Order: sequence, then C-alpha cells, then structure tokens
Amino acid sequence: METLNVALDERSYPIHIGSGLLSRPELLLPHIKQKKVVVVSNETVAPLYLERLCATLASGGIEVLPVILPDGEKFKTWETLNLIFDGLLAERCERSTILIALGGGVIGDMGGFAAACYQRGMPFIQVPTTLLSQVDSSVGGKTAINHPMGKNMIGAFYQPKLVLADILTLDTLPDRELKAGLAEVIKYGLIRDPEFFDWLEVNLDKLLARDQSALVYAVQRSCANKAEVVAADERESGERALLNLGHTFGHAIETGMGYGEWLHGEAVAAGTLIAAELSCALGWIEAPTVARIERIFVRAGLPVISPALGVDRYLELMSHDKKVQDGKLRLVLLQGIGKAVVSDAASKEQIAAAVEIRCTAAGRN
Amino acid sequence: METLNVALDERSYPIHIGSGLLSRPELLLPHIKQKKVVVVSNETVAPLYLERLCATLASGGIEVLPVILPDGEKFKTWETLNLIFDGLLAERCERSTILIALGGGVIGDMGGFAAACYQRGMPFIQVPTTLLSQVDSSVGGKTAINHPMGKNMIGAFYQPKLVLADILTLDTLPDRELKAGLAEVIKYGLIRDPEFFDWLEVNLDKLLARDQSALVYAVQRSCANKAEVVAADERESGERALLNLGHTFGHAIETGMGYGEWLHGEAVAAGTLIAAELSCALGWIEAPTVARIERIFVRAGLPVISPALGVDRYLELMSHDKKVQDGKLRLVLLQGIGKAVVSDAASKEQIAAAVEIRCTAAGRN
Ligand SMILES: NC(=O)c1ccc[n+]([C@@H]2O[C@H](COP(=O)([O-])OP(=O)(O)OC[C@H]3O[C@@H](n4cnc5c(N)ncnc54)[C@H](O)[C@@H]3O)[C@@H](O)[C@H]2O)c1
Ligand SMILES: NC(=O)c1ccc[n+]([C@@H]2O[C@H](COP(=O)([O-])OP(=O)(O)OC[C@H]3O[C@@H](n4cnc5c(N)ncnc54)[C@H](O)[C@@H]3O)[C@@H](O)[C@H]2O)c1
Ligand SMILES: [Zn+2]
Ligand SMILES: [Zn+2]
Repeated sequence: METLNVALDERSYPIHIGSGLLSRPELLLPHIKQKKVVVVSNETVAPLYLERLCATLASGGIEVLPVILPDGEKFKTWETLNLIFDGLLAERCERSTILIALGGGVIGDMGGFAAACYQRGMPFIQVPTTLLSQVDSSVGGKTAINHPMGKNMIGAFYQPKLVLADILTLDTLPDRELKAGLAEVIKYGLIRDPEFFDWLEVNLDKLLARDQSALVYAVQRSCANKAEVVAADERESGERALLNLGHTFGHAIETGMGYGEWLHGEAVAAGTLIAAELSCALGWIEAPTVARIERIFVRAGLPVISPALGVDRYLELMSHDKKVQDGKLRLVLLQGIGKAVVSDAASKEQIAAAVEIRCTAAGRN
Repeated sequence: METLNVALDERSYPIHIGSGLLSRPELLLPHIKQKKVVVVSNETVAPLYLERLCATLASGGIEVLPVILPDGEKFKTWETLNLIFDGLLAERCERSTILIALGGGVIGDMGGFAAACYQRGMPFIQVPTTLLSQVDSSVGGKTAINHPMGKNMIGAFYQPKLVLADILTLDTLPDRELKAGLAEVIKYGLIRDPEFFDWLEVNLDKLLARDQSALVYAVQRSCANKAEVVAADERESGERALLNLGHTFGHAIETGMGYGEWLHGEAVAAGTLIAAELSCALGWIEAPTVARIERIFVRAGLPVISPALGVDRYLELMSHDKKVQDGKLRLVLLQGIGKAVVSDAASKEQIAAAVEIRCTAAGRN
C-alpha cells in the first residue's frame, strides 16, 4: 500500500492506494467515531462493492445507511442530489455523521457536494472505484453537479477526510472506462512530469492489461502530482488551472454532445489534442511532439479527433467556461511534454483554426 | 457611520453601518473591479431600493444585472435558488463576477448560498435591508436554503466581502418585521452583553419609534457581538452555538407552523422563553429573571407564548435540529442575563415540561 498526504493545514488528509483496501478495517475505522455512516453509491457499484464495505465497517460495529442513486452523468443533477438530502434527513443524520462516497467521479462529486451542503458541511470519505476518480476527481476537493447550461457549474471546494483507492475494484471496470481514466493519467505526464510520460509510453500495455502493480504505481504517481498541485493552490487561482489541460475543449465536447455521450476522459483526450495543435500553431511545440502526444492517446484507445460540432458552437460553449476572465479565454497550452502553461496568447482565429483541424478525421495521423 | 471588522484572516471583511450608505459610492466601488455586477433582490425590496443602488454603482460605470425573486420564506428553496443560477448562466457571469444581495435574511441567505455554489464560489456583498438581517444574518457567513424536512438544512459557510447596513432602509420596514428583528438584538444582550441588555431596557421605545441614532447604535453593538463570536468560532464548533439561544425551539415553531407563518424573530422570542423556563427549572436562573426577559419581549411586541403544537411534535421537530449530537439534544440555556451556555443537562422530561408551560397562555405573565 502507498500512502500520500494532501497538505492543506487543518484540512490535510491521507490517500491510501493499494490492492484490496476495501477489506481492511484498520484503514477506515480510525476515521469514524460514530455508530452509523451513510454510504452513497449507485446501482452499478453497490451490487459489486457495497457488501464488502459494509462487512469491513460492521467489524467495527458501524451500521451503514445506503443511499443508492441511478447510474450516469445525466443524473449528476440537483434532483439526484436531493435524493441524498432526503435520505440524510429521513435517517435524521447529524452534521457529524460521516458520508462515504463509493463509486466513480459522478458519485464522488455528488456525494462530496451533498456533504459540503448538508447542514453546511458534514465529513466525508472518498472511496473511488474508477481509474478516473482514483487519479483525479477524488483528490483535491472539487465537488459539483451539472446545470443544463453547463457542466459542474454548481459546486463547492470541500475536502474529504480520507481517500481510499482500492485498485482491486478496477477489475470490474469496463474497458472503455479504464481507457478514459488513462487520459487523466497521461495528462499529469504532459503538464508537469515528463519522466512519468516516458514511463507511461513504456508501460501503457501493462496498464491496459490491468497489471495491479503497474496500476498502483500509475495511480500513486498521478495522485502525487495532483496532491502537490492542490496543496500549492487549493482554490485554483494559479497552478491548479494547469490540471485543466484539454478540459476547456473537453467540456465543450461533453456539453455539445449531450452529457454522457462522450466519457469525460475521452473528451479530455480529444481536447488535449486541440490544445496541442494550438500550442503548435503558436510555435511553442513542434509537429512531431503533437504526433507523439497523439500516439500515446491512440495506443490507449482514446479519441484524438473531436466531434464536428462546428467551430462556432465550440466557441460558444467555451465562452461559458469557468476559465473565462474579462471575456478573454485563458487556455492551458503546452510548451513541451511535461510543461504546461496558462495563457491567453491564442487569438479567437487561432483557436478556431486548431478546433477545425482537430475535428477532421485527417488530423495529423 | 460605524465600521466594524470581522476578523477571519484572509477572509476578513468590513461591516459599514449608518444612515444613507446606499447612496455612497466610495463604500461600494473599491470592492468592485468588474464592469457588471449581479444584484439579487425580491419583488418588495427591488422597487424600493434597487434604483438607488443602481445609481450609486452607475456613478462608477458599473452595470447591474438584476435577478428579482418572489418574496417570502416559502421561496427559500432550491427552485428559487435555481432562478439565480439561471440568471448567472444566461448572462454568462464569470466566477469573478460579484453578486450583491439586496434584501432581508431570505435574500441574503439565498444570494450568499448561490454565490458559494456558482462555479464553486463567486464573491458577494451583503446589503441587508431588514433589522434582522442587519444585526444577524448578513454577518458571519452562514448561508442556506430550506428543505421540506427542515429549515436551513442545505447551505454553506461562505463569507461576504463587505456588509453595507443602511439604517435608512429600515424606514419602510413593516412594524412586525422591525419587532422580529429586535428579538435577535435582545438575544445578544441575553447571551453575552448584560450592559447592552440594560441599554435596551432603557431605549426600547426609541428603537420602536425608529430613532436613527438609537438604531445605528443597536445594530452596531449587535454586529460587534456577532463579529466577535464568529471570529472566535467561524464554523460553530464552540462559542458560536450560543447565538442559537431560543433557536432550537424557534425552528421547531417555524417548521411546525409551516414556513412563513411565524416570523423567525417571533419564533426566536417564544423559543427564548422556553429556554429561559428550562434554565429556571434547572435552577440556573430565578423566576424574576424569567419574568424580566418576558417583559422586554412583550414590550417589543413579540410573542412569549409558543403555539400549542403538542409536546411530542416539538420533540420530534427538535430531533432534526443541527444541534443534536449522538442523539442528545444540546440546548443553549441561560445562567443569568448576559450568560448563556450550551448544555445537554436538561432531560427529555424537563424539556417537555418547559415546552408545556410556555405553550399555555397562562405562562408567567
Ligand atoms: N472533482 C473533480 O476534481 C473531478 C475531476 C475529474 C472528473 N470529475 C467528474 O467525474 C465524473 C466522471 O467520473 P468517472 O469517469 O469515474 O465516471 P462515473 O462515475 O460515471 O463512472 C463510470 C461508470 O463506471 C461505473 N463504475 C464505477 N466503478 C466501477 C467498478 N469498480 N466496476 C464497474 N463499474 C464501475 C459507474 O457506475 C459508471 O457507470 C464526471 O462527472 C466529471 O465531471 C471530477
Ligand atoms: N444566515 C444567518 O446567519 C441567519 C441568521 C438569522 C436568520 N436567518 C434567516 O433570515 C431569514 C429571515 O430574514 P428577515 O427577517 O430579514 O426576513 P425577509 O428576508 O423575509 O424580510 C422580511 C420581509 O421584509 C421585506 N423587506 C425587506 N427589506 C425591506 C425594507 N427595507 N422595507 C420594506 N420591506 C422590506 C421582505 O421583502 C420580506 O417581505 C430567515 O430565512 C432566517 O433563516 C439567517
Ligand atoms: Zn478531468
Ligand atoms: Zn436567528
């Protein structure tokens, strides 16, 4: 097992990463003083892992009140969030009751936001069960729900007390989801960890084959990168924005296609290629570097061509992005593999051209 | 004009209190760097004060996007909150856009909660226009909406950048609302400021007659008390709980009667008498002290007899209260005028008996 620490003063918390952690009471019990906890999960994950979690908690005399939500990004809404509040209130949960989010990023984001709001804040624990949630969404305290007019528009910065990433749960993850998670893993290499990018080029096939020790390493190294960034900039006033490489374009794809059509990681992969293309147009990276980036995403089975929504639609969707400041689009761009920067250097025309190139199947392949 | 500071490190902010502050651009403009702000108000307050606020902002070249909500506690819901999000998104507001809440506690609580959640947090300014919101809800960063199963159950701790309490706005406040606000003013005397309680006994009639300088003094002294408590305990882990004198009972009354039937301050007044009665039953204060407390509330035109919902219903409603810990009811009780404590010393039977006494018109009068 690997343990990292997210250093945020009195809000610091540990991340445990390893195989079979769900069955280890000594990791969970020290964080739970109450006799009952609420576990928020969904209809897919609960049948797979809820019993295991309940058994581990039961060994410490802790009772579980499950709140099982429908599965899917399209349920990441106020209505579903309200099901959690209904459950918490029906069971008369106190503000000191602990909420455990057991599932992927959708459950983590909603469970976390519910915890942030319930009685103005109850403690919560993340038990991420997708690769994406283990390497990204469970760490850093961003929580949110979607609004019809934009993804993750309503939310809170709210840190968990503990993150428990059990790599064994990835065994049941659909291939497509595993690959989507790899997009965020590759992202860490691209934005700030060139050695990790090299390691990924060598070990990608092991990850795709779900080699446990390769996965533990990739998750741990990803989390270490994220934890460092978050510790330096919890509320995304500076460096944290780099984590959004590919995301401004990716969000436009997700929204433009309708929530749930493209997986988040898939949209991020395609979006990262637009960012790379744009960086190339600005003369910051060379064409072979764009090709190298494209290659690793292709090997990971991820899309590198964006959907043809039309350039105007992209620009419109992006104008809703949180990264807009005084009407100017601030984008995360690359100055090399392992070196991302936030910049408003790209003109509207340059952005439009890069989108255009990456929407045609020709691309650079 | 009086200026107080709420000392919360990097989240510190000033409270300005005085007559006619809405017309003074030099108080608002230094806090607003953007060219447009969103003003959240309601159908009652907007016709009275929105134009004045707009003119002041216009003098600094700032455009106002108004979001006008229906008026009333019963609209303090997710649906109404969503109208704010719709407005913010329709106008493509950025996370750096400033939201100004212009109105009473309902608008302040909803505007603040919307600001806390929109893109995980946008800056906001409180312009409270009721006595209650000037002395209480606008200071301290508690924001919330109601849930059908409990008041203020969904919310956030989120501090404003500035509070502007224009005493002149109280001129148009209905009498009943002014009196309700006095309940919270009296509360500060009761929980921690015996001198202020004495001052209130002397000056109550001036306040009821809306003497501006008496009102400025009462608001400023109330805010000073609240700011001290909040600075010492932002998230209500200790002393801040004392501000809830009368509130556990009061919330039960508000919920039991249906949101909006009893005003918050009215419920707090009646609830404070239950707390006083219980303190007396525990032998902590004498019967004449209860009578003295009852007298000032009666003079202020506030209810001192609670509605006859039935003791069981009170206990049930209170079991939902945030002040429950491990199933035990922690109540704010009095050890004298100016000395409140949080205690779980009262048994269920003692609580029931105090409720019973204060529900009969006989009371102690
Ligand atoms: N908070 C953040 O910082 C952050 C960062 C990145 C992404 N996100 C959010 O995360 C969400 C995406 O997360 P995700 O990719 O985990 O999607 P997800 O939560 O929808 O999970 C993907 C699918 O896998 C299923 N699943 C989960 N664990 C499984 C398991 N162990 N075995 C089998 N099936 C399993 C889920 O039920 C779902 O059907 C998006 O809503 C995105 O906005 C948040
Ligand atoms: N956040 C906190 O710490 C805190 C503390 C106490 C109370 N509260 C909340 O505050 C709310 C009660 O606030 P309130 O008493 O201000 O009620 P309110 O906001 O409903 O205002 C009372 C009425 O007066 C009207 N009004 C407001 N200003 C006016 C003016 N200047 N002239 C004429 N009419 C005016 C309003 O439109 C409303 O009809 C409750 O929801 C309560 O939960 C919050
Ligand atoms: Zn992401
Ligand atoms: Zn109150």
